[in-house]
Amino acid sequence: MAQSSFLLRQAKPEDCDEIMRLIVELADFGKMAHLVHITADTLRKDMFAEKSLCSSIVAELAGSEPRQLIGYSLFFPIYSTLDGMSMYLEDIYVTPSQRGQGLGKKMLLHVTKAAFDLNCQRLHLAVLNWNKFAKDFYIRCGLIDVTETEDWHLMRMKRKEIENFVKDPKVKD
Amino acid sequence: MAQSSFLLRQAKPEDCDEIMRLIVELADFGKMAHLVHITADTLRKDMFAEKSLCSSIVAELAGSEPRQLIGYSLFFPIYSTLDGMSMYLEDIYVTPSQRGQGLGKKMLLHVTKAAFDLNCQRLHLAVLNWNKFAKDFYIRCGLIDVTETEDWHLMRMKRKEIENFVKDPKVKD
Repeated sequence: MAQSSFLLRQAKPEDCDEIMRLIVELADFGKMAHLVHITADTLRKDMFAEKSLCSSIVAELAGSEPRQLIGYSLFFPIYSTLDGMSMYLEDIYVTPSQRGQGLGKKMLLHVTKAAFDLNCQRLHLAVLNWNKFAKDFYIRCGLIDVTETEDWHLMRMKRKEIENFVKDPKVKD
Repeated sequence: MAQSSFLLRQAKPEDCDEIMRLIVELADFGKMAHLVHITADTLRKDMFAEKSLCSSIVAELAGSEPRQLIGYSLFFPIYSTLDGMSMYLEDIYVTPSQRGQGLGKKMLLHVTKAAFDLNCQRLHLAVLNWNKFAKDFYIRCGLIDVTETEDWHLMRMKRKEIENFVKDPKVKD
């Protein structure tokens, strides 16, 4: 088990290359590395523009030069018509060699504290159900699987389907 | 089948009482009316504050006085670490007596057009899987159920669980 010193902090614009490296690492674990279509520049613009789309807490390996990140979380505000302002956790990731030190829990604690302080009423996330490691961790932290308990299913259309529907909305209501 | 004249438009602050009436109607259909904890004032503040949390397209019954809404949609920006800026559709609802006129499709078209124009790469939503009417409609419009196809499960913690975790984060990583 690794025993490293690390520093948890808000992401800065100059972290985006390292965050992107970890995003690709996580996507690769989910067999989705070929589906990563954003770049470090996209992320920098989207996170640090005047109208920021998301926030990130990163874990920096203490004393690394150049600065090396070993984990990140990315989250943003959402809204519930039942409960009001809430938070969505898009990703939380620790690089495999640095697991077992409580880093995932510490990052989730940062995110939930931010949600708590902002008076968010909910925290949502989506997990690949086959990823038992992640799912068990979230359950231990107090999340419940509402796909199982309430039959919620996640639906998605990507840019191509959005374009198809907008340009040719022939569908029976 | 109803044949009413209606006007689709952006919500205004003075619509929030009517939107709330429809939110409660939709929640009641999902057997969740007792779980609605926001008010028209919450919604007005959250939608029309300087940092707006969500947007809404409403369907107004033409010529109604006082102004009557017969449907609404509510949506907000989200972020994907695969694809970047995206849109989440929290609710789309048409009051039962006004169904069958293509109103749901017209509202979804408004939302997808907004997503398309903003260069959103995805549109996400969650559906109660037993609501075949809604689910079949979304599938006809081009959405896919990624809980079924990719095993994504939705997880949630509410305010009480957030507070429990923040105040007593004793959990094994």
